[in-house]
Amino acid sequence: MGEVALLPGERIDQLAPAGIRIIQHPHVFAFSLDAVLLAAFAQLPKRGGQVVDLGAGNGAVSLFAAHHTTAQMTLVEIQPRLADMARRSIVLNDLTQRLTVLNMPMQEILTEIPKDSVDAVMTNPPYFKDSPTIEKKSNPHFALARHELTVTLTEVVALSADLLKFNGKLFMVHRPDRLGEILSKLQVHQLAPKRLRFVYPKAGREANMVLIEAIRGGRPNGLRVLPPLVVYDEQGNYEAEVKRALFTD
Amino acid sequence: MGEVALLPGERIDQLAPAGIRIIQHPHVFAFSLDAVLLAAFAQLPKRGGQVVDLGAGNGAVSLFAAHHTTAQMTLVEIQPRLADMARRSIVLNDLTQRLTVLNMPMQEILTEIPKDSVDAVMTNPPYFKDSPTIEKKSNPHFALARHELTVTLTEVVALSADLLKFNGKLFMVHRPDRLGEILSKLQVHQLAPKRLRFVYPKAGREANMVLIEAIRGGRPNGLRVLPPLVVYDEQGNYEAEVKRALFTD
Repeated sequence: MGEVALLPGERIDQLAPAGIRIIQHPHVFAFSLDAVLLAAFAQLPKRGGQVVDLGAGNGAVSLFAAHHTTAQMTLVEIQPRLADMARRSIVLNDLTQRLTVLNMPMQEILTEIPKDSVDAVMTNPPYFKDSPTIEKKSNPHFALARHELTVTLTEVVALSADLLKFNGKLFMVHRPDRLGEILSKLQVHQLAPKRLRFVYPKAGREANMVLIEAIRGGRPNGLRVLPPLVVYDEQGNYEAEVKRALFTD
Repeated sequence: MGEVALLPGERIDQLAPAGIRIIQHPHVFAFSLDAVLLAAFAQLPKRGGQVVDLGAGNGAVSLFAAHHTTAQMTLVEIQPRLADMARRSIVLNDLTQRLTVLNMPMQEILTEIPKDSVDAVMTNPPYFKDSPTIEKKSNPHFALARHELTVTLTEVVALSADLLKFNGKLFMVHRPDRLGEILSKLQVHQLAPKRLRFVYPKAGREANMVLIEAIRGGRPNGLRVLPPLVVYDEQGNYEAEVKRALFTD
């Protein structure tokens, strides 16, 4: 494992799958279950290929997914502090040969990566349309990661379609309340939804997360809705599948 | 209960909720679980109002839903044989004061029911785009009910939007593989999806049905995804919720 310096308040977490170690900061950015489940859901090219992580944060999704693929992975993150944490976590896990961080607005990505060249895009974009002033003021790191301040859903989908090869795959995690909008935007950009998986916090509760796979240029009506993924059992412990994604995948 | 004549091959089934009796014919039309679950899912006006059932078949959805509402219900069915079965089932259940069958193509419904006048539309439309020639030849009744021969999804959605009042509700059952197309068409017709519920044949299997509620003129991003509905348990018996919908609701 590579050695890296930690900044004040940062910690290294190893909750993560496959022994991946990841630099976190409770007041700046800490990965959540969304990242773990997106990494487990994404079917990345087995041999070689190009993967882009749009809005990579501290790199959690790509770090977790890295051992499922031998692809080159490019992590795009606008916040310098998060991009720096991602870079150091990549060193920490000896993944510098395959994972690269670009600290830039994702809207400029086509200056670095050719159009129609990518096998898979992964993205855990900001979920919320509005940006409560209070969060923006109190914690700009959280605000940018959670609210559509620097990038909109429309842009994320359009950029994904631009980057992907024909038959390339988009993997996204988002909130079910925006599913209608997401599917409409995918259609506009010739991204055919292929798999949906709804994540429920507990049995009997409404879904609070949706995992989406779409294929560039795929046929429009082959959508599959996978079995429900339930996070916690009645006792408040992780269900078996979530445990596997967190600790062993 | 009213008395009606049965034609050769017809039977009266009373599996149905709330003691509803329904005329079936195994070679013409027999209701399926889809109808039962749609009727249980639909939230109809409690007092009065107008409900339309587009593509009513033998009337199963409306007959099952009738005891949840005091609304006037209009069943639209293009096949004379099915419309006749529905009419006789309505007599059999003493519902002639509230349930009316129109034997006509649904595309002509606006000649009978004013635009923007309906509180709720229920529809269990044909699921399949293509129409295998073999089924069309061997059983025209099944072919018309299952395949988009006389009406398309686009037409069903457009007609629903035409019929519904502002804030009126559409309740539809369909197949998940067409969800992307359904949500896009709803958006085009200013029908905002409000609730989705996926139906899974068994735990661990992919969804094979989706129940959809949309509101005419509703806000676009309030979609809720309800807890999964699983039909059969490991032993192949109905799960409790399905049993309730079938036998006691």
